[in-house]
Amino acid sequence: MILTVTLNTALDITYRVPSLRPHVSHRVTEVTERPGGKGVNVARVLAALGHPVTVTGFAGGTTGREVHERLAATPGVVDALVPVSGATRRTVAVVDERTGDTTQLNEPGPVITPAEWSAFQDVYEDLLGSVSAVALCGSLPPGLPVGAYAGLVRTARAANVPVLLDTSGEALRRGVAARPDIIKPNADELAELTGAHEPLRATQDARRRGARTVVASLGVDGLLAHTAEGLWRAVPPARVHGNPTGAGDSAVAGLLSGLVEHLPWPDRLARAVALSTATVLSPTAGEFDRTAYAELLERVAVTGEASAA
Amino acid sequence: MILTVTLNTALDITYRVPSLRPHVSHRVTEVTERPGGKGVNVARVLAALGHPVTVTGFAGGTTGREVHERLAATPGVVDALVPVSGATRRTVAVVDERTGDTTQLNEPGPVITPAEWSAFQDVYEDLLGSVSAVALCGSLPPGLPVGAYAGLVRTARAANVPVLLDTSGEALRRGVAARPDIIKPNADELAELTGAHEPLRATQDARRRGARTVVASLGVDGLLAHTAEGLWRAVPPARVHGNPTGAGDSAVAGLLSGLVEHLPWPDRLARAVALSTATVLSPTAGEFDRTAYAELLERVAVTGEASAA
Repeated sequence: MILTVTLNTALDITYRVPSLRPHVSHRVTEVTERPGGKGVNVARVLAALGHPVTVTGFAGGTTGREVHERLAATPGVVDALVPVSGATRRTVAVVDERTGDTTQLNEPGPVITPAEWSAFQDVYEDLLGSVSAVALCGSLPPGLPVGAYAGLVRTARAANVPVLLDTSGEALRRGVAARPDIIKPNADELAELTGAHEPLRATQDARRRGARTVVASLGVDGLLAHTAEGLWRAVPPARVHGNPTGAGDSAVAGLLSGLVEHLPWPDRLARAVALSTATVLSPTAGEFDRTAYAELLERVAVTGEASAA
Repeated sequence: MILTVTLNTALDITYRVPSLRPHVSHRVTEVTERPGGKGVNVARVLAALGHPVTVTGFAGGTTGREVHERLAATPGVVDALVPVSGATRRTVAVVDERTGDTTQLNEPGPVITPAEWSAFQDVYEDLLGSVSAVALCGSLPPGLPVGAYAGLVRTARAANVPVLLDTSGEALRRGVAARPDIIKPNADELAELTGAHEPLRATQDARRRGARTVVASLGVDGLLAHTAEGLWRAVPPARVHGNPTGAGDSAVAGLLSGLVEHLPWPDRLARAVALSTATVLSPTAGEFDRTAYAELLERVAVTGEASAA
């Protein structure tokens, strides 16, 4: 069992409109909804890969009820979200059918009280007793201390559960200092953390700050992994066009599944890049195209070498 | 007791963003929610004027639950919404804090089944037994026959309950033929109904088509009322700037409250224009500024004359 943590879960709503024009009234032609937040997206991909997964974090209000109902209908995903008095946030993605572009509106999320945060930490510690890896994903909702992830990283390490941290800004900076096993920043997040814009130098710096492994996601340039066992690059076979929403979450699912299957790093990275690219190619945001995934898995180029022992 | 019917109720959500730009991701700085749909808005204004009011129509899904919960917290409003299996639609108004302009996204609404429509008609007929007036407001949700309002107008007339119809397009055309007591089209709706763009000619034509009274809302030019008792114009004292959302619903509330209080037409029209103008002046969309309302009520100019007996 893998555990994913999403402290700021969401009800993700997608609207299709013929053409989005500011200051005008639009009839929405199609509405789709699904539970969201990075950790929930990672869980959905893990479940699709055949890995049983538990999701935790917070859910509240009628939007939270909707998230619970939809998770219950997702095979392979166990719902361990902790109730809160505030309402789970919505995100609204408005897809312009003319251009294909998306305009995103993200609610801030409910304020979490100290009692709710404390209840969550108890649930989290209990869940760690029965999982083989944990991913801590996404932004912090209002009310939580900025060191929230650092605390969760330390609890995972104390429980001997490998922990991946995927967040940004000050929450990432504090979290890295608590020595997570893996971080997966994108180029901007990595530059903000380290001050370095050259990926090789930046990943090195992030490891010095405490991360055991740094897997930088560099968009069309694929992944750069700086690990204790060696340094690798994994690059998709061709530049693809599509919707990048959720590509990073698919990469996290690839890394986690490879970790619990004890795959060598080059295989984990190939899987992460293939999943991430197959997500960009899928017409539905955040889902991956299975046929494309199988084809890509054989064609991702992984270069690099293991460190001297 | 006044009855308002909203067949396509909504959960109205308002987002404030610093500046709305297509194809960009936005953090929403403020989220507000309230039950909506034209008849619900009319009911809220009637209740604020001290008139007890019952709302009916449809509600379903978690959004419908939210509408029920918020109506329960609205003093003076009785909730008689009929349950449906589909989910009540959302409307999202995105307010650009830089320009003050609003971009509107309206979901289509749930498909109403024939059994649900039939259940509604029974509830409606029962409610008509204990009300002094009824307003039929807004668009039809998917699944309802285009003659839905015509049927509801006939039922009200058979029950001797004065009926006001505020809708548009083919639903208005069919509804007018069923001889409602009052219709309140805006200039565009009136032109679409009659083919005439000159308000005086158009209101005359709309009466010939079946409406006993036509109150045309002409924006900054106020109201033009063509009734069996005479012809009047009511004009606000000055051009005002603000948010016109809900101004038409406030005018309907003014007309209905004046009707059940048996006010003469000039007083009904003055009230409708004052309420509508005070709604434009309110910082919160769809609510009216009470102080402005009291002041405006004395300053609305009503001109015209009663017909020869």
